[in-house]
Amino acid sequence: MSSDQTSVTGPLRIGVAGLGTVGGGTLKLLQEQSELLQRRCGRRIEVVAVSARDRRKTREVEISALRWHDRAEALATDTEVDAVVELIGGADGAALALCEAALANGKHLVTANKALLAHHGTALAQAAEAAGVNLGYEAAVAGGIPIIKALREGLAGNRIEGAYGILNGTCNYILTAMHDGVRSGQVQSFETVLNEAQRLGYAEADPATDIDGIDAAHKLAILTSVVFGCPVNFDAVHIEGIRHINAIDIEYALELGYRMKLLAIARDAPNGIEQRVHPCMVPENAPIAHVDGVFNAVVVKGDFVGTTMFEGPGAGAGPTASAVVADLIDIARGQMVPTFAVPAKSLSPRSFAPMAKHVGTYYIRLMVVDRPGVIAEIAACLRDQQVSVEAMIQRARDPDEAVPVVLTTHEAEEAAVTRAVAAMAKLGSILETPCMIRIETL
Amino acid sequence: MSSDQTSVTGPLRIGVAGLGTVGGGTLKLLQEQSELLQRRCGRRIEVVAVSARDRRKTREVEISALRWHDRAEALATDTEVDAVVELIGGADGAALALCEAALANGKHLVTANKALLAHHGTALAQAAEAAGVNLGYEAAVAGGIPIIKALREGLAGNRIEGAYGILNGTCNYILTAMHDGVRSGQVQSFETVLNEAQRLGYAEADPATDIDGIDAAHKLAILTSVVFGCPVNFDAVHIEGIRHINAIDIEYALELGYRMKLLAIARDAPNGIEQRVHPCMVPENAPIAHVDGVFNAVVVKGDFVGTTMFEGPGAGAGPTASAVVADLIDIARGQMVPTFAVPAKSLSPRSFAPMAKHVGTYYIRLMVVDRPGVIAEIAACLRDQQVSVEAMIQRARDPDEAVPVVLTTHEAEEAAVTRAVAAMAKLGSILETPCMIRIETL
Repeated sequence: MSSDQTSVTGPLRIGVAGLGTVGGGTLKLLQEQSELLQRRCGRRIEVVAVSARDRRKTREVEISALRWHDRAEALATDTEVDAVVELIGGADGAALALCEAALANGKHLVTANKALLAHHGTALAQAAEAAGVNLGYEAAVAGGIPIIKALREGLAGNRIEGAYGILNGTCNYILTAMHDGVRSGQVQSFETVLNEAQRLGYAEADPATDIDGIDAAHKLAILTSVVFGCPVNFDAVHIEGIRHINAIDIEYALELGYRMKLLAIARDAPNGIEQRVHPCMVPENAPIAHVDGVFNAVVVKGDFVGTTMFEGPGAGAGPTASAVVADLIDIARGQMVPTFAVPAKSLSPRSFAPMAKHVGTYYIRLMVVDRPGVIAEIAACLRDQQVSVEAMIQRARDPDEAVPVVLTTHEAEEAAVTRAVAAMAKLGSILETPCMIRIETL
Repeated sequence: MSSDQTSVTGPLRIGVAGLGTVGGGTLKLLQEQSELLQRRCGRRIEVVAVSARDRRKTREVEISALRWHDRAEALATDTEVDAVVELIGGADGAALALCEAALANGKHLVTANKALLAHHGTALAQAAEAAGVNLGYEAAVAGGIPIIKALREGLAGNRIEGAYGILNGTCNYILTAMHDGVRSGQVQSFETVLNEAQRLGYAEADPATDIDGIDAAHKLAILTSVVFGCPVNFDAVHIEGIRHINAIDIEYALELGYRMKLLAIARDAPNGIEQRVHPCMVPENAPIAHVDGVFNAVVVKGDFVGTTMFEGPGAGAGPTASAVVADLIDIARGQMVPTFAVPAKSLSPRSFAPMAKHVGTYYIRLMVVDRPGVIAEIAACLRDQQVSVEAMIQRARDPDEAVPVVLTTHEAEEAAVTRAVAAMAKLGSILETPCMIRIETL
């Protein structure tokens, strides 16, 4: 008989590893809502032990009454701990060691660690299942939005056709600020906005994980497994970040009736499952186009429910603590569903579609020398690849100077568009590397 | 030992009462997704018996292999039924009799019936708890949006400050169409749009329940209980519908940077819990302002999570079936949480704030005779009640003819605003009953 069953009427005893922003927020929530949680769970949720890097650090929450472990892994063998909350971070190292040990010792596990799950999600789900314990990770995807619960339970009657997420608040903040700049006539470059985001604490000193799309890809790999019941496969995610986004492309997006968003997309496409993170233009009348600033959102398309959208704060102490505690409430109430919506042993590999096979519509911006015949040359590149043009904007401003030419295509295979763009890049009249951005109509 | 425990590895056997749009959709979903559901639940969900008004009616789904009951209530005593799905409708009568009998006989119950729960929710929750069975009603509120699960589980770590919903698709369709009319210069009256909605099947032949706010109020009463852990109290809901909404008010809303929405609001206000359904002006940059047509949405504000929003189709066979089946999946997986988030026996009455005590900002439109001194008279009415004006728009078009004067107020108590408006109505220069609409900044 596992420890949770013997103590289902006593308190649920928690050990927390990692007392940074999220760990502090989690302790604060559990303290402040203690009565409310007892009423909702029928039992108390009690933090009994903690582990962090520095015991003596000044913290907002009082931890002196809690058992301290220098080594996080010791929480896994603490006989008075029923559930371990892993808030250390990192795909391997101490976080992985703790999680593996916790499950091996029959402890429930709650984690906010998307990198860990993106790399070891399937194995951890199998370990949790073997031990008969919960593996909760609501906080790992889309912060405070209960999207894992929505997919794993609330929409579980549906075959999901696709999930489209704004999963990285830093990128969404930057793109929103660039939009606002264009609209207010105070155009700002990506670098300027990134610096401002760093100053405000919305971007890390080393912003690569966020702005290069890695963080969103970690979350997407997890979402894909929940949605399609397949093992987590981070390596199959196509990843592009937002470093190359220019204010001029935001300007054209607005002019064409779109908004620029970094989307993370898991889609059941004719050629296999698509897992892709990249900047997109989305129609301005799509609900996701209005998700601004550091907010996250996930659009889910199901065969029976149709299109639903879930929006909320994607990060921060409060929202993340809310998600961590939702998982603890499930454990305290004795709720358990399969980690990725189906039993871990029945997760069945799906074939992933290569990006070259993606069929969609595209935005292409070229900087060209403004002289007769240029458009004909560009048009020929597209014709040679059987890509048809939907619209074109050329505003000649300076004869013989560089001017932008913008094209949107009808539906075409990405391989063909890529070849057409490569051919354009070789033309003598093209002055910069062409910019190609996918249009996602959702 | 209850029947579900003995058969937790065998199929979950369902009896469905009511085979209209939603009943048909539910049968269709259960048939088409049978394998997927088995994979997700670890067991089959099997419809074994049905009851409806007319056995011989031609239906989209095949029911000839299912046991037929002329009386719905017979499902409650069918020994081969583990869970009853009530899709008959109506606050009393056959639906109530079936639900009471099902719970009394230890059957799980799933219902899409908001009127029933608004009137008998507390008693039914107590009966379900006494019997140790599930009472699922995801489909009763906001159609396909898994909002009950989000509130009862996903956000259960939060003290909820307020929930703000667009819960009636008919009203939202009508208001959206009126907005579109104003924007396109083809202004349409409420009646014209209602007729069109009826022609398209978005409004009933007798539209009163929808357009007078009753349907939204039923759903709100349920939401309030989940959010605040109090008994369902439909009588405490303040209800206003949208019959009196004029195109001119939509026009002014747009001009002032608002959108008109029928909101259902449950809010923990200083004077008690507010439960109110009425047209509101919401800021155009609020996410809920962009929820258009027959879509529903619920904005939830929690103390830790902040503001989240859940959007999706609010009605229809597919979305409603998705919600009904989500509840069946919970049952099949052995998941059970208290009906209104806390045990039914611990639902504690809360005091409800009277509408007169509501503090907010207001839009007031008056039709006045365009002559000097009118504005001074109006201003005096507000001054006498200590209500201060935030903005005023008067566009004199025809001296000595009727022209609109529009005011917005700073925060004021509703009683004071009501008194000021009553005083204005008595002025000789005021030609129609003044129109007062609340502004909700969310």
